[in-house]
Amino acid sequence: IRYAGTHLLIDLWGASKLDDINLIERTLRAGADEAGATILHCHLHHFEPNGGVSGVLVLAESHISIHTWPEASFAALDVFMCGDCDPHKAIPFLQDAFSPNRIDVDEQLRGKDV
Amino acid sequence: IRYAGTHLLIDLWGASKLDDINLIERTLRAGADEAGATILHCHLHHFEPNGGVSGVLVLAESHISIHTWPEASFAALDVFMCGDCDPHKAIPFLQDAFSPNRIDVDEQLRGKDV
Repeated sequence: IRYAGTHLLIDLWGASKLDDINLIERTLRAGADEAGATILHCHLHHFEPNGGVSGVLVLAESHISIHTWPEASFAALDVFMCGDCDPHKAIPFLQDAFSPNRIDVDEQLRGKDV
Repeated sequence: IRYAGTHLLIDLWGASKLDDINLIERTLRAGADEAGATILHCHLHHFEPNGGVSGVLVLAESHISIHTWPEASFAALDVFMCGDCDPHKAIPFLQDAFSPNRIDVDEQLRGKDV
């Protein structure tokens, strides 16, 4: 194998609905499906009083995580997938759900030349 | 806040015991504790037949994840913590548990100037 997996570090700025835990779960699941991943486990935690959400999906092909700071309109996501999945396919779902002003995507090839 | 959290991308090379799910759970929990984090949720999945493990700890201060490829003696971890936690303090536990020949650590400040 040339690398173990593609890891996208995705930061959303000026985003909305970052306290909507149901929307977040639906969005992450839809992104995982579209990317071709298999969801093994999902857990989301809703923080009080700010309404922030931390959540993870464990995938057969690695994981997706999200941490939101609604008061700063900021969210940090990781979409890490090995195999034939394409993690980039999750990004349009983030755009549609949270309407960020800006999305920063940093791609890391984990385990290169492993 | 100057940034939302410190995210360490940690790759272990030439590592052993990467199929030992109990050791992995103990190691991640010990690292989280030492870093000053609060564990909210833990889930690990054991893959067959290669014995690889994918796992996540959801923290009050973000998350820790691990994916192991025992057949390649390779593991990819993320230790992402906000607040007063020091994610670097988890690294010696990885060294002790898995005896890697090499550890690569990439530090990303997520949400800088958020």
